[in-house]
Amino acid sequence: MKLKSNMSRISTEEYIANLSIDCVIFGYEDAELKVLLGKLPFGTDLYNLPGGHIRKSESVDAAAIRLLFERTQLKDVFLTQFKVFGDENRIVNSPFRELMIPFLQQKYEQADVEWIMSRFVCIGYYAIVDISKVQVVRSEFDERLEWKSIHEIPEMIYDHQEIFENALFALRQNFDRFLNANNLLPETFTMKELQQVYKTVFEKEFPMNNFQKKILELNVLDRLEKKYTGSQHKAPYLYKFK
Amino acid sequence: MKLKSNMSRISTEEYIANLSIDCVIFGYEDAELKVLLGKLPFGTDLYNLPGGHIRKSESVDAAAIRLLFERTQLKDVFLTQFKVFGDENRIVNSPFRELMIPFLQQKYEQADVEWIMSRFVCIGYYAIVDISKVQVVRSEFDERLEWKSIHEIPEMIYDHQEIFENALFALRQNFDRFLNANNLLPETFTMKELQQVYKTVFEKEFPMNNFQKKILELNVLDRLEKKYTGSQHKAPYLYKFK
Repeated sequence: MKLKSNMSRISTEEYIANLSIDCVIFGYEDAELKVLLGKLPFGTDLYNLPGGHIRKSESVDAAAIRLLFERTQLKDVFLTQFKVFGDENRIVNSPFRELMIPFLQQKYEQADVEWIMSRFVCIGYYAIVDISKVQVVRSEFDERLEWKSIHEIPEMIYDHQEIFENALFALRQNFDRFLNANNLLPETFTMKELQQVYKTVFEKEFPMNNFQKKILELNVLDRLEKKYTGSQHKAPYLYKFK
Repeated sequence: MKLKSNMSRISTEEYIANLSIDCVIFGYEDAELKVLLGKLPFGTDLYNLPGGHIRKSESVDAAAIRLLFERTQLKDVFLTQFKVFGDENRIVNSPFRELMIPFLQQKYEQADVEWIMSRFVCIGYYAIVDISKVQVVRSEFDERLEWKSIHEIPEMIYDHQEIFENALFALRQNFDRFLNANNLLPETFTMKELQQVYKTVFEKEFPMNNFQKKILELNVLDRLEKKYTGSQHKAPYLYKFK
C-alpha cells in the first residue's frame, strides 16, 4: 500500500493477493471472556476483527503470529487456525463497501484501494490470552482497539460476526485438547481456579466432583506435594500443567 | 492454462492465484479404509492427492464440491474443510520441482508453468464415501487414479503425505459430530453394521455394550419397530439416522 504523501509504506506487492487473516483474540480477565475488536474510523459504531495479509516470504502461520504480535505485543501465544471463510461475495458485494472505499481513498492510491477491496479468502485464527499481559496497539484502520464482552459484540463489518461465532465454537470444541487454559493461570493453581476458567469460557457450571474427574482423566496435570504448614490438611492441592 | 496445441482450455486467469485445494477422499469398502490417489505421469511410483484451483467466480466450498465431483462423479457428499497448509516453501522450494517442470513444459506455455509452480497456499478438505458408488475420473495430471489402503500409501509429492495424515486425524476427531458414517450404510442398518464402520475408521475394537451406549447417547439414531416375523425375537433391531 502506498500513502498519497511521500511517507514510506509497505507495498501491496509484498503480500499475497486475495488471501487474508483475521484473528479472534479472546481475552480472559476477572472471570469474564472478552474479544479484541477494532473500532473503524467511520460509521457510528462499526467494528472489525484484527487482521491483515500474508507476506510472500512468510508462512501463513508466521503471518498470523506476526499479526497477533503487532496488535498485542504478545509472543509465544498458541494460535489455532480454525476455518477458512471463502464466500466469493464477502468483500466484493458487501454493503460496507460504500463506507470503506471513501475512507481508503483519503489515504491510498486508487490501485491500492482496489487491491484492498478485491476478493479475499480469509483464514481465521483464534487465541485466548490473559488480558493483563496484553499491550494493545491499534492498526492504521482502527480508531481504537477495545476488549468487548462476548455478550456485547457491536456491529461488525463484512462477515466478521460469523467469523467470531465460529471461533467461539472452535475455542470450546478444542479447549481440552489444546490446553488453552494454560496461559490463563499462574504456574501453579488450584482445581477451583481451573474450574473458574472453564465456567467462564463455556458459560456453564461444572460441578466440582465431575469436573475434577474429567480434568484428571485428560492426564495433563501434575499434582504437587503439599508443603508442611500448620493448616496443611485444609489447604487445597496445587496443580501445574505437565 | 493453455495447451500448446490449439485445443481450447480454461485460462489460468479464471482462477485465484496462490490458492489451491487438495481433497483427501476416503473410501469405505469391505470393511477397509482407502484413499483416492492420482499416479503422476512421471517418477517411478509418485502420487498426489486430487486437487485443483478456485475460480474467481465461485466460493472456496463450491470449488471443493466441484473438484470432488470432477474426480468421483459424486454429488451431495459432505466435505469437511480441515486445515490450511501455508508453508512458503511447499511448492517453490520443493525437490519435486525438477520432476514437475519438464512434465508441465511438454503441455503448457511457460507462463502457465510458472503459474502452476508458484507459491500455493493449500486448503485441505476431506470426505468419506462408499467406494461402490464412485465413478473415478482421472485428471490431466493423473496417469491413473486409484484407491489405496491407508496402510499402503505410496510416496506422494510436496507435503501431500502430511495433508493425508492431518485429514485422517480430523476424520476421526469429527466422526461422531459430523455423522460421517451416514453415507456408508444403507438407509436402515444394525448396530453391528455401524460398529463395523467405526472399527474400520478408527482401527480399533469397540466392545458392543459400550459402543451401543455411546452411539445412543449421541442421539442421532431412530430405532425402528420390528415387523412381526416368525423369528422376530432373534432379529436385531434396525436403526436409521434421524
